[in-house]
Amino acid sequence: MSEARKSWTVEELAAACGGRVVGDGTRTVANVAPLDEAGPDDISYLSDPKWSRHLAETGAGAVILKDEQDAARYVQVVAGDPYLAYARVAQVIDAGLYPRAEIGVAEGAFVAESATLGSGCSIYPTAFVGERARLGSNVTLHPGAHVGEDCEIGDDTVIFPNAVVYPRCRVGARVRIHACTTIGNDGYGFAPDAEKKLVKIPQMGWTEIGDDVEIGPCCTVHRGALGPTRIGRGSKLDALVVVAHNVQVGEDVRLVAQVGISGSCEIGDRAILAGQVGLAGHLKIAPDVVLGAQSGVASDVKKPGLYLGSPAMPIEKARRIVMTQTKLPEMRQKLRDLEKRLAKLEGGGKD
Amino acid sequence: MSEARKSWTVEELAAACGGRVVGDGTRTVANVAPLDEAGPDDISYLSDPKWSRHLAETGAGAVILKDEQDAARYVQVVAGDPYLAYARVAQVIDAGLYPRAEIGVAEGAFVAESATLGSGCSIYPTAFVGERARLGSNVTLHPGAHVGEDCEIGDDTVIFPNAVVYPRCRVGARVRIHACTTIGNDGYGFAPDAEKKLVKIPQMGWTEIGDDVEIGPCCTVHRGALGPTRIGRGSKLDALVVVAHNVQVGEDVRLVAQVGISGSCEIGDRAILAGQVGLAGHLKIAPDVVLGAQSGVASDVKKPGLYLGSPAMPIEKARRIVMTQTKLPEMRQKLRDLEKRLAKLEGGGKD
Amino acid sequence: MSEARKSWTVEELAAACGGRVVGDGTRTVANVAPLDEAGPDDISYLSDPKWSRHLAETGAGAVILKDEQDAARYVQVVAGDPYLAYARVAQVIDAGLYPRAEIGVAEGAFVAESATLGSGCSIYPTAFVGERARLGSNVTLHPGAHVGEDCEIGDDTVIFPNAVVYPRCRVGARVRIHACTTIGNDGYGFAPDAEKKLVKIPQMGWTEIGDDVEIGPCCTVHRGALGPTRIGRGSKLDALVVVAHNVQVGEDVRLVAQVGISGSCEIGDRAILAGQVGLAGHLKIAPDVVLGAQSGVASDVKKPGLYLGSPAMPIEKARRIVMTQTKLPEMRQKLRDLEKRLAKLEGGGKD
Repeated sequence: MSEARKSWTVEELAAACGGRVVGDGTRTVANVAPLDEAGPDDISYLSDPKWSRHLAETGAGAVILKDEQDAARYVQVVAGDPYLAYARVAQVIDAGLYPRAEIGVAEGAFVAESATLGSGCSIYPTAFVGERARLGSNVTLHPGAHVGEDCEIGDDTVIFPNAVVYPRCRVGARVRIHACTTIGNDGYGFAPDAEKKLVKIPQMGWTEIGDDVEIGPCCTVHRGALGPTRIGRGSKLDALVVVAHNVQVGEDVRLVAQVGISGSCEIGDRAILAGQVGLAGHLKIAPDVVLGAQSGVASDVKKPGLYLGSPAMPIEKARRIVMTQTKLPEMRQKLRDLEKRLAKLEGGGKD
Repeated sequence: MSEARKSWTVEELAAACGGRVVGDGTRTVANVAPLDEAGPDDISYLSDPKWSRHLAETGAGAVILKDEQDAARYVQVVAGDPYLAYARVAQVIDAGLYPRAEIGVAEGAFVAESATLGSGCSIYPTAFVGERARLGSNVTLHPGAHVGEDCEIGDDTVIFPNAVVYPRCRVGARVRIHACTTIGNDGYGFAPDAEKKLVKIPQMGWTEIGDDVEIGPCCTVHRGALGPTRIGRGSKLDALVVVAHNVQVGEDVRLVAQVGISGSCEIGDRAILAGQVGLAGHLKIAPDVVLGAQSGVASDVKKPGLYLGSPAMPIEKARRIVMTQTKLPEMRQKLRDLEKRLAKLEGGGKD
Repeated sequence: MSEARKSWTVEELAAACGGRVVGDGTRTVANVAPLDEAGPDDISYLSDPKWSRHLAETGAGAVILKDEQDAARYVQVVAGDPYLAYARVAQVIDAGLYPRAEIGVAEGAFVAESATLGSGCSIYPTAFVGERARLGSNVTLHPGAHVGEDCEIGDDTVIFPNAVVYPRCRVGARVRIHACTTIGNDGYGFAPDAEKKLVKIPQMGWTEIGDDVEIGPCCTVHRGALGPTRIGRGSKLDALVVVAHNVQVGEDVRLVAQVGISGSCEIGDRAILAGQVGLAGHLKIAPDVVLGAQSGVASDVKKPGLYLGSPAMPIEKARRIVMTQTKLPEMRQKLRDLEKRLAKLEGGGKD
C-alpha cells in the first residue's frame, strides 16, 4: 500500500488543476468540503453563481473560483471551469487519503493456474479468476469479484465486490465496474417453436468495455448473440442500467440510472440518456443527442439536440404538448359549449 | 442456534399482538395460513371485509379479526387492526420456526484483524469484514456479504448473501439489507472537460442507514459526493430502488420497486413512492405525499396528498386528464365537424 | 469436463434442426456467424428476407434458409423456420465449443453436511449450499452462487456467479439463473401501526421456478407472504425484472428487461411484457396478451391481443391517441379560432 497522505499546499493543487493562485500558495489543506461546511483545513469551490452568498461566509482555507475576489480570508485558485478544476483537485486528495492497497493475491482468492496477472495486482479473498484470463498491471479485484475464463482485463482496472465478468469478455484500462454488476451475461434471445415454446438462441458473442469507462452497481451489459456488445471509451453508466446484446455505445456517453437499451441499438458519442429512458431495438441515436428522463424512443434520432417524451420528440414540442394536456378537460368542455352555441345558430338562434 | 419452536397457545399470540381472546385461549397453533387454506393447526386473519365469505368456511384453528363473531369453530383474537395484529403474531411464529443460527465467525469468513465484533455475531463463510470496521452484537453477515473498511454496523442487523456495504458507511440497528444490494457505491458525478471527456468527481462522502430500515434486493444507495446520503429510521425500500448521492430520505418512507431518486432530493417522512416512480434532482417531497406508480416528478411537491402522472399532479386532475386523453381522437373529429358546420354558417348556409 | 469439439458436418447439424441438406452434407463447419461476416468454416442463416442481399455475397460455408437457392457456393440447410433451426444448430455448436466443466465439489466451496447432491454436480469455490438443500444431477453452482437451507434444485440447472436462492425455494430442471439475481428474497409487506411506523409482515412463503426457465441477471423473484410465488415452465425473464410476492407467472411467458409486476398478479401463458412495463397489484393478464414497452397496467387484461400505453389499451387505440396528442397544441389553437369565428357570427357578423 502507498502511504496515506494528509495535506497538500494550495500551490500543488492549483498545479494539478491548471489554476492560478491568488494569495498564499504555501497554505495547506487536508480535505474538500462544500462552501457552507468548509473549515480552515478544507478547500472548496464555487461553480454556480447562485451559491455566491456562501462564498461571503465560508470558513474554507482555500476556494476554487472563476473570478478573482477581493478577499483575503481564503486563498483563491482561479480557474476557467471551477467544477472541472475541483474534480482534478478532489482526485488528488481522494487518492492521497484513501490510497489503493496493493495486496497481491490474497489467501482465499481463486486464480486459475493458466491465468496471467500483471505486476501490482490486488486480488482479494473470494475473488475468482478463470482459466486463461489475462489481467494487466495494478488490477484490483475486490472480494467476490469474478473474472470468467478467457477474459482480458486492462491495467489499473477495478472490479468492485461481487461484480461479475462472464467468460471471453474484454475490459479496457482504468475501468471501474461497481458491485453486483454483470458484464457479458447471456443476451435475451429465444425463438418460439411451433407450440410457442421458447428455444434458446445461444449467446455466443462477448462484451467489450473501452478504456476509462465507469459502470455503476447492478447494471447488466449483455454479451452479443454473435460478435460484441460495446461500451466506448470514457462512457459512464449510472446504476441499474441495462444494455442489451449487440448494442454499440459510443464514447463519452452518459447513461443515467435505470436506462434500458434494447438489442442492436447504436448510441452516438457524447449522447446523454437521462434516468429511466427506454429504447426499442435496432435504433440509431445520433451523437450529442440528449434524451430527457423517462423518454421512450421507438425510432431513430438523427439530429443532435434535446428530446423528451414517449414517443420522444424535440423538447419544445414535447413541453408544449404536455402543457396542453393539462388543459384537456377544459378543452373538452369548451368543445361542448361551442357545439351547443353552433347548434343554436344553425337552428336560427332558437334554443 | 436457539432451538426451533413448534407451537404457540392462542393466548400468548393474543398477548403478543394486544388482542382479546374469545374462546379457548389454551388451544395451540403451529403456523399461519390464509383463511381459505388454513387447517386446525393454523392461525389466520380477516382484515378486509371483502373476504368475509372465507371466514364462514375456514378450517383455521384460530382467527384474528376486528369484530367478535358468533362462531365456536375457531378461537378468536379480536384486535382493532387485524392486519397489524397478524404482523405481530406472524413475527412470533416466524422467529420460532426459523430461529437465527448463531455461528460465530465461520471458517472461510474473512474478518480483518483491526475489525471489532460485538457478541453473538454470525459471520458466514466467504463474508468479508474490512479493516477497522465495527460490528455491534448479533449481527449476521450471510455468505458473500461485504462490509468495507471503517464501516459501522448496528446491533441485530442482517446483511443477506452478496450484499455490499462500501467503506466508511454507517448502518443502524435491526437493519435488513437484502441480497445483491449495494450501499455506499460511488455516486454518479462527472465534469466534462473542454473536449467533452468526462472527468470523475471523486465521491468522498458516505451513506447512513437509520435503525429499523429494510432494503430489498438489487437496490443501490449511493454514497454522497461530499457528506452523507441518508435513509431515515424505519423506512422500507422494495427491490431495484436507486437512491442517488446526497439524497435525504425521511423516516417511515416507502419506496416501492424500481423507484429512482436523483441526487440531493429530500423525501419527507411517511411519503410513499409507488413502483417505477422517477424524481429529477434536488427536489423536495413533503411528508405524507403519495406518488402513484410510474409518476415522473420534475418540481417540488409541497403538500401532502396523492399525486400521479408525468409530470405529477394531484390525482383527481391527473385522472381527469387521462380520461380525457382517451377521447382525443373523437375530440379531433368533433373539431373538424364543428369547423365545417361553422364554415357553412359563415358562408351563409351554402355548402 | 467433456472434450471440446471443433467441427461438425452440415449433415449432422441439419439432423439436429430437422432441416434438409442441399449440396454436400459432408462439408464441415466450426462455428456460426452472421451472413455478412461468415467465412468458409461458418454456418449462417437467413430468416428475414430483408437481408437477402447478404446471401448473394456471403462467404459462409453453409446457410440455413427457408427456400432452396440456385447457388453452389454454400451448402444449404432448408428449414421451415430458419431462425428456429439456427437456434438448434447453434445449441449444438455452443455446447461443443464450450462444454460444461464437471469439477465435483471444488476446494473452497461450502456444502452443508446435511445437503445432498446428485451425480455430476459442479460446485465452484465460494459457492454455498445450505443445510438440507437437495441438488439434482449435473447442477452447476458458479463461484459465489448461493443455495439456502431446504432448497430443492433440479437436474442440469445452472446458477451463475453470485446469484442467490433464499431458503426453502424450489427450482426446477434445466433452469438458468444469471449472476446477481435473487430468488425468494422477502416480499415487500408492512403494516403501519397507529403512529404510521411500518411493522414487518414476515414473508413466510417461498418461490417456485418451473423447468426450463431462464432468469436474467439482477432480477428479483420475491418469496410469497404465505404460499408460493411461481414462474411457470419455460418462461424467460430478461435482466432487472421484479416479480413481487405471490405473483403467478404462467408458462412460456416473456418478461423483458426492467418489467415490474406487483404482488399477487397472474400472468397467462405465452404473454409477453415488453421492456419497462409496470403492473399494479392483483391483476390478471390473459394468455397471449402482448404489452408494449413502458405500458402501465392498472386493471385486468382479459383478451389476447396487443396493448400499449399507461393506462394500457388496445394498440390501435393507443396509437391513435398518441398521434392525436402530437396535434394537441394545434387543436387548442383551432378551438380558439373557432370560438372567435363563432362569437363573430353570434354577434351578427360584426367584429
